[in-house]
Amino acid sequence: MIDTKDYLVAPGHCVRLHDIATKDNGGLTKKEGMQAIRSLSKRLFELQDLLYAQRAKSLLIVFQAMDAGGKDSTTRRVFTSVNPSMLMVRSFKKPNTEELSHDFLWRVHQHTPPKGVIGVFNRSHYEDIVTVGVNQLQPSKLWQSRFEHINSFEKMLVGEGTMVLKFYLHISKNYQKERLQRRLDRADKHWKFEFADVDAREHWDEYLALYSEAIERCSTATSPWYVVPSERRWYRDLVVLQSIVNTLDALQMDYPEPEFDPNSVKIP
Amino acid sequence: MIDTKDYLVAPGHCVRLHDIATKDNGGLTKKEGMQAIRSLSKRLFELQDLLYAQRAKSLLIVFQAMDAGGKDSTTRRVFTSVNPSMLMVRSFKKPNTEELSHDFLWRVHQHTPPKGVIGVFNRSHYEDIVTVGVNQLQPSKLWQSRFEHINSFEKMLVGEGTMVLKFYLHISKNYQKERLQRRLDRADKHWKFEFADVDAREHWDEYLALYSEAIERCSTATSPWYVVPSERRWYRDLVVLQSIVNTLDALQMDYPEPEFDPNSVKIP
Repeated sequence: MIDTKDYLVAPGHCVRLHDIATKDNGGLTKKEGMQAIRSLSKRLFELQDLLYAQRAKSLLIVFQAMDAGGKDSTTRRVFTSVNPSMLMVRSFKKPNTEELSHDFLWRVHQHTPPKGVIGVFNRSHYEDIVTVGVNQLQPSKLWQSRFEHINSFEKMLVGEGTMVLKFYLHISKNYQKERLQRRLDRADKHWKFEFADVDAREHWDEYLALYSEAIERCSTATSPWYVVPSERRWYRDLVVLQSIVNTLDALQMDYPEPEFDPNSVKIP
Repeated sequence: MIDTKDYLVAPGHCVRLHDIATKDNGGLTKKEGMQAIRSLSKRLFELQDLLYAQRAKSLLIVFQAMDAGGKDSTTRRVFTSVNPSMLMVRSFKKPNTEELSHDFLWRVHQHTPPKGVIGVFNRSHYEDIVTVGVNQLQPSKLWQSRFEHINSFEKMLVGEGTMVLKFYLHISKNYQKERLQRRLDRADKHWKFEFADVDAREHWDEYLALYSEAIERCSTATSPWYVVPSERRWYRDLVVLQSIVNTLDALQMDYPEPEFDPNSVKIP
């Protein structure tokens, strides 16, 4: 078992993504890692059933990353084995006119998971700091005040029963180049290629600085950020899976006792 | 390969669920069936990626069944291998006050899948005929007019790019008893047990008659109903999977051609 605490950002701890490794293996071979992933996937399936049976808590998972950082493939690989009926995945694209006419938490709040359900945000309200900040889409005073709003919002979610786990999938600028090149090289990936992703590379350092600040200021004891080295995909999946399983295991859930005596029921 | 046409309800064809088998194997052993399921699952994964890459069509899948008929487990088993980011599963429970204050299609319409996405309805607008009819929750003139409304609604969906496939998971009253008893016998299933499911058994024949009528009147060439023998779960999954794969295969999708020359792009 790997120690996910290595990737957890302790509250109040300084974060400089520039200095954090984007590749790791936790001392495991790929074969050992894949084996761990299989057994964690099975455990996640059981835990998800318990979460749903109890309907006392829900779990919100946030993925943020640079373009081609692996938000889609992590979602697919971590959650393919779970029950899709109790899973809600939401991708947040560029906000539309209606969304922009509301506060920045309005559109995400509508998609937080109800009790019993695991919700996944592919991008999230953190875009409204990072992307907005880098591209100066709003006055800086406005987006800077959002760190506090996010902390209050996530505190409310946790207080009301929605656990929150946030993962920054960390890759290097060179690795991103490889992944974008792959979209050019493979006919079945052309549709994923966007010139905007290439243009954004110009602002790489600014993005990284703002992500560093957001992660530093918004990693709390109850709503933590993990910085996941993501250039080995199996290891990335393993860190995410292990963190989720640890969080759900800590609830020590059992199937609820029925409010009737099952032996007394006769089905006609 | 099994012939799913055996389970397709031809438009205008008379349907009497009382006379339709609830158990079948299509001449296959379980081993052969499971092998077919594995290869169809892989194909569904590829087809889903193409559907999303093209974003020209979407697919809505409707599951209806008697209680304990297997809507949840079919959803889980047929869709676990697909990409959860491009899948939307929606369970419709008893309508709430706001939903009841709208027309019966209002709440389902909000959850039809956007282009590129596969949507699954676990129960649907058909409850507003069958359950409403059996329990006389609305005047009969009202719910009887809904056959026509449903046909118009689904015709609109198909015309606008959302393909519709509907599956009735067919079980016998005895088999239902076995499945409900299982929920009483197993501690990890107690939470699924509901007395209302037992009470509904009194109206078994009425439910079956109304389902027969709904399926007969609402199976159209473009929005067909399948009656799936569901007491062998692997065979049920196979029929559903094969029907979905056939429908998507018929689109003869390719990855879209890029609107630029991939060889001309240099990533800095």
